[in-house]
Amino acid sequence: MTLLAPIDLRSDTVTQPDERMRLAMSRAEVGDDVLGHDPTMRALEERVAGLLGVEAALWVPSGSMGNLIALMTHLTRGDRFLAPRAAHVLGNELGTPAWLAGGMPEALDWDAGPGRISPSAVRAAAEGGSCPYYALRTTLLCLENTHNAAGGTVTAPEDFRQVVAAARAAGLRVHLDGARLWNAAVALGVAPAELVGDVDTVQVCLSKGLGAPVGSVVAGTAEFVAEARRVRKMLGGGVRQGGVLAAAGLVGLDRLDDLAQDHSNATALATGLAELGWDVPPPETNIVLAAVPDLPGTLAHLTGLGVLAGPMSGKVRFITHRDVSAQDIAEALRRIASAA
Amino acid sequence: MTLLAPIDLRSDTVTQPDERMRLAMSRAEVGDDVLGHDPTMRALEERVAGLLGVEAALWVPSGSMGNLIALMTHLTRGDRFLAPRAAHVLGNELGTPAWLAGGMPEALDWDAGPGRISPSAVRAAAEGGSCPYYALRTTLLCLENTHNAAGGTVTAPEDFRQVVAAARAAGLRVHLDGARLWNAAVALGVAPAELVGDVDTVQVCLSKGLGAPVGSVVAGTAEFVAEARRVRKMLGGGVRQGGVLAAAGLVGLDRLDDLAQDHSNATALATGLAELGWDVPPPETNIVLAAVPDLPGTLAHLTGLGVLAGPMSGKVRFITHRDVSAQDIAEALRRIASAA
Amino acid sequence: MTLLAPIDLRSDTVTQPDERMRLAMSRAEVGDDVLGHDPTMRALEERVAGLLGVEAALWVPSGSMGNLIALMTHLTRGDRFLAPRAAHVLGNELGTPAWLAGGMPEALDWDAGPGRISPSAVRAAAEGGSCPYYALRTTLLCLENTHNAAGGTVTAPEDFRQVVAAARAAGLRVHLDGARLWNAAVALGVAPAELVGDVDTVQVCLSKGLGAPVGSVVAGTAEFVAEARRVRKMLGGGVRQGGVLAAAGLVGLDRLDDLAQDHSNATALATGLAELGWDVPPPETNIVLAAVPDLPGTLAHLTGLGVLAGPMSGKVRFITHRDVSAQDIAEALRRIASAA
Amino acid sequence: MTLLAPIDLRSDTVTQPDERMRLAMSRAEVGDDVLGHDPTMRALEERVAGLLGVEAALWVPSGSMGNLIALMTHLTRGDRFLAPRAAHVLGNELGTPAWLAGGMPEALDWDAGPGRISPSAVRAAAEGGSCPYYALRTTLLCLENTHNAAGGTVTAPEDFRQVVAAARAAGLRVHLDGARLWNAAVALGVAPAELVGDVDTVQVCLSKGLGAPVGSVVAGTAEFVAEARRVRKMLGGGVRQGGVLAAAGLVGLDRLDDLAQDHSNATALATGLAELGWDVPPPETNIVLAAVPDLPGTLAHLTGLGVLAGPMSGKVRFITHRDVSAQDIAEALRRIASAA
Repeated sequence: MTLLAPIDLRSDTVTQPDERMRLAMSRAEVGDDVLGHDPTMRALEERVAGLLGVEAALWVPSGSMGNLIALMTHLTRGDRFLAPRAAHVLGNELGTPAWLAGGMPEALDWDAGPGRISPSAVRAAAEGGSCPYYALRTTLLCLENTHNAAGGTVTAPEDFRQVVAAARAAGLRVHLDGARLWNAAVALGVAPAELVGDVDTVQVCLSKGLGAPVGSVVAGTAEFVAEARRVRKMLGGGVRQGGVLAAAGLVGLDRLDDLAQDHSNATALATGLAELGWDVPPPETNIVLAAVPDLPGTLAHLTGLGVLAGPMSGKVRFITHRDVSAQDIAEALRRIASAA
Repeated sequence: MTLLAPIDLRSDTVTQPDERMRLAMSRAEVGDDVLGHDPTMRALEERVAGLLGVEAALWVPSGSMGNLIALMTHLTRGDRFLAPRAAHVLGNELGTPAWLAGGMPEALDWDAGPGRISPSAVRAAAEGGSCPYYALRTTLLCLENTHNAAGGTVTAPEDFRQVVAAARAAGLRVHLDGARLWNAAVALGVAPAELVGDVDTVQVCLSKGLGAPVGSVVAGTAEFVAEARRVRKMLGGGVRQGGVLAAAGLVGLDRLDDLAQDHSNATALATGLAELGWDVPPPETNIVLAAVPDLPGTLAHLTGLGVLAGPMSGKVRFITHRDVSAQDIAEALRRIASAA
Repeated sequence: MTLLAPIDLRSDTVTQPDERMRLAMSRAEVGDDVLGHDPTMRALEERVAGLLGVEAALWVPSGSMGNLIALMTHLTRGDRFLAPRAAHVLGNELGTPAWLAGGMPEALDWDAGPGRISPSAVRAAAEGGSCPYYALRTTLLCLENTHNAAGGTVTAPEDFRQVVAAARAAGLRVHLDGARLWNAAVALGVAPAELVGDVDTVQVCLSKGLGAPVGSVVAGTAEFVAEARRVRKMLGGGVRQGGVLAAAGLVGLDRLDDLAQDHSNATALATGLAELGWDVPPPETNIVLAAVPDLPGTLAHLTGLGVLAGPMSGKVRFITHRDVSAQDIAEALRRIASAA
Repeated sequence: MTLLAPIDLRSDTVTQPDERMRLAMSRAEVGDDVLGHDPTMRALEERVAGLLGVEAALWVPSGSMGNLIALMTHLTRGDRFLAPRAAHVLGNELGTPAWLAGGMPEALDWDAGPGRISPSAVRAAAEGGSCPYYALRTTLLCLENTHNAAGGTVTAPEDFRQVVAAARAAGLRVHLDGARLWNAAVALGVAPAELVGDVDTVQVCLSKGLGAPVGSVVAGTAEFVAEARRVRKMLGGGVRQGGVLAAAGLVGLDRLDDLAQDHSNATALATGLAELGWDVPPPETNIVLAAVPDLPGTLAHLTGLGVLAGPMSGKVRFITHRDVSAQDIAEALRRIASAA
């Protein structure tokens, strides 16, 4: 048992709502969002749609549900979908893209850098052309920006547009898992809509770096959102006075720029670890992946130091977030250094 | 367009969190309930398990998800399940018991009063004995107390126990949809656990009469809850700092007895309507069903009077709740009387 | 153990291919029906399409697969379908219409005679009009002619047309389970196409009264059949040199009129049983249902007499077929009479 | 349009039943295999179980259904299964392992030669140990011997046993897709049971090299086969007098050794093509894969020569079989040579 105050770098999902957010929740104007529209929910959905440059948006209880609803809408039995290797939809959603949305996944190698795929990889996998009635039909490309399992890596707007264009040319729909799209936008210094382009659907999260307690948003055309609302109800994700949660999301959206601090904290952590001899590449956003010889042993050792991390892609993953300060990072490095 | 302030009797789902509830939400202690346990969530789940007399409980975003998780756990392809005619799981959950949980439904006639079935009906439908490999296997009985579509009707503990015993004797599991179980308990003057008995699983709602903005609870054995937690994550119902919602649920549970007022309001409404010549039986809880010759016409007429109701089972359904006072009911009756 | 040669009235599925059929099978011209088209298969499919008056047809290994493919094509999650109570798709297909085709079933009472429903029942169940996004959508009516569990009852062309018209007017598609459609046509003295009309899809069986060893056919538009071919492959029902089976089906189709003998045998059996005091209504085709006080006891007793029957709808079901002669029926009655 | 008699090397599925097989079919003793057991079916199933060294076996209409039934029995939602890259279950079964059996696939690279994986690859992918409730659970390994898309490559008994042992040690079940297991056994000169070992389930085909018109067999424990029979009925694969097909399968099993001729024909073809400058490795069984610069163009050119081949893994695939003689192979090479 450690006597040190834990520094929790397991995930940015551990962020707690702060006072301003709690106040907003306690004052939220609400309504029955199943029978009609909760006004705060509606305000949130319209604001996110605007930020993403799409027609409409729908709040969902989790990013997993957002991705699932999009895939359930795009896919049907006999379809195949493409995603970069180790994408969240492939490895971290309990197989729902397969057994519930109905798609056969095909993982694409990262041929354009960690977490990134090239337009030609999409073209090759899609094969284009007609296929016989007894063959799978490739109909969807799922992208992820930032790519979590690759270490929070970013795909830049121009690369993104070319990949989407290749998918379009091959007749594919495109879904973007943007659970940390805000991080990508801040890291690149572009508006989030630049990273959405004309994909069919996109999911963004309110509860990771933004600090809202619960909630994500899935967005696309008004027609998609109408169907998504129905699918959300099927899955049990239709809630009543959800405005209390939407209010927290609205506060989170006010402070997208705060993510820059998380990114510089991640860089500080990676730099410090590298100086201590760890095998860790420079982070692109708020995720630091460190290759270690003994993963369970290292995680236990870190826990003993009060530095909480998690496993990802066979490495140690640290995620910085708004509840960890630059001082906390310095303290974490101090603990690790003195234990070495 | 009416100038009259609307009296909203469409559903008890329209209830708004009051000041005490909002305060509790704003002060809730929270944690990441996916990676670990949110402390307020845990407190809520333990309290509900205690109230229901079961081993363990799990918060879910909606009653539909609670029922769905229970059915996904109980059923597999080739199974058949029984439920009283017009049960919520049959008609109001978008078919998920069939296409997602995998069960073939069999509706049982109300042979023991509105919304109620007899032990012998269960025995006859279950057929017992062995069946050939190419036949459906009846494995589950779903009960609903109160029964919404029958008009909020109540099944008493002794009748309930006999039906459950018949199901058990036929080798069936039993799930109880207790979206309004609190209403049944208050109406009967018994502890909720009396109406749960030894069913395998039960779902109760925090957002209807209790007034919480979001949330239900599904409960059963610890083993069931462990699996339910996994299924909840699959469906996208795993949330992070859900304690803000659990806090509202805990406040709601403090005031179960307030439901008695809703019931007397429903009785006043039914009595008043009957005096005006409406065809309406005495309500057993907070739901009033009125048979009318022209359902759409009547609903439109009522809306014009600022008395909001909804359709259910081909009738007009009024639901009383904590945001409608005895005065509101009197006013609603006045409006209807003067328009007659 | 009985010394009497068994008279097998359990089902018309027990029929054996006769010499002519076996010869046709042994001489069938065949090809790879997955990669291209088996010529005998194609001849069979074209002949059935012609008989039914539809555009195209597809051989399938069983009637269950034919119904399943049709329902998988018509239904999607959130849909509801209607069928007369105790229809084969409801009770005898292991729930695949629900868990695999995705539909929530609604059983309609036989308000127009045994196994028969009225146009108004369809209208009432379909409700018509728009429904909110969170409601089931009724999209399909499944009919069954003859209706097995009702005792092989027949729906006449005019009644059938009115029910289909009511479904159409309510925006429903219509699938016809015609496992014994040939029996209905022969009993009514009409061409099979008269009993198909303009339904969307229809399934007919080659292996019951017609005596082929294996196979059914599902039929509809050419567009439907293209999709059905794909779904058949998914389910594992795509076969290679299936012409050996199609050849048997073609022989069966040559002797539709032989079914009249089965019908008169059924009438003789029912008449004889009634004379012996059994509770048995006059059969409409080749199925005799007898209500008995002790079903398992009676079935065991009959087996002891070498008269094999089965349970159906809580009654004893006898089915006559081409491998049971008028003499066999007389002998069965003799055995039952002397044991009485 | 070619005037040359086509030499059909598209697949060994194009084989036609010969006179002996047709005679056996026409004389087969049959029964209703749904209600009871067809005697010829039973003889076939017992013979295959014996050949494979397993407890019990079940005839199915296709290899796809055999694999699907096995996977439906082994997998449930939230499970992950492993298979060598480009396995038939991954790419050629319309995604049913995902959307119908419920598994999330993970393709393993061929780290032990074409179509072959090493024990350590299985260990690494399975990860072993416990995983959190919100993670996929790897529960199944699917092997394929010979591996079609790799060019009919063979896994030898000792390598196979080590891979299976690694899977077992990691807590996985093992299914073997043995659509061409007979070819592997003949090529290796071992009994088929040597290549089955103690896997949980195995599927073998009667209609490829063995020449039966329709049918495969899935096998395992008696308990598995009981469940498989139920699942087969669900999918619509339960047939009545299937003995006519089983009789063909029994004839096919009498001549397993004939496959050696197909293998030497494949070697002759590959050798001849290599001499003509084609890029083609020596075949291990009856499949020849040739890398060509222009796949559609080459296939069209070959068709023009009356040499029918197909596409596989981006290459030209030729499959030899019992309806193509050594003379046919020589003729095919002659045509290709003279057109060069």
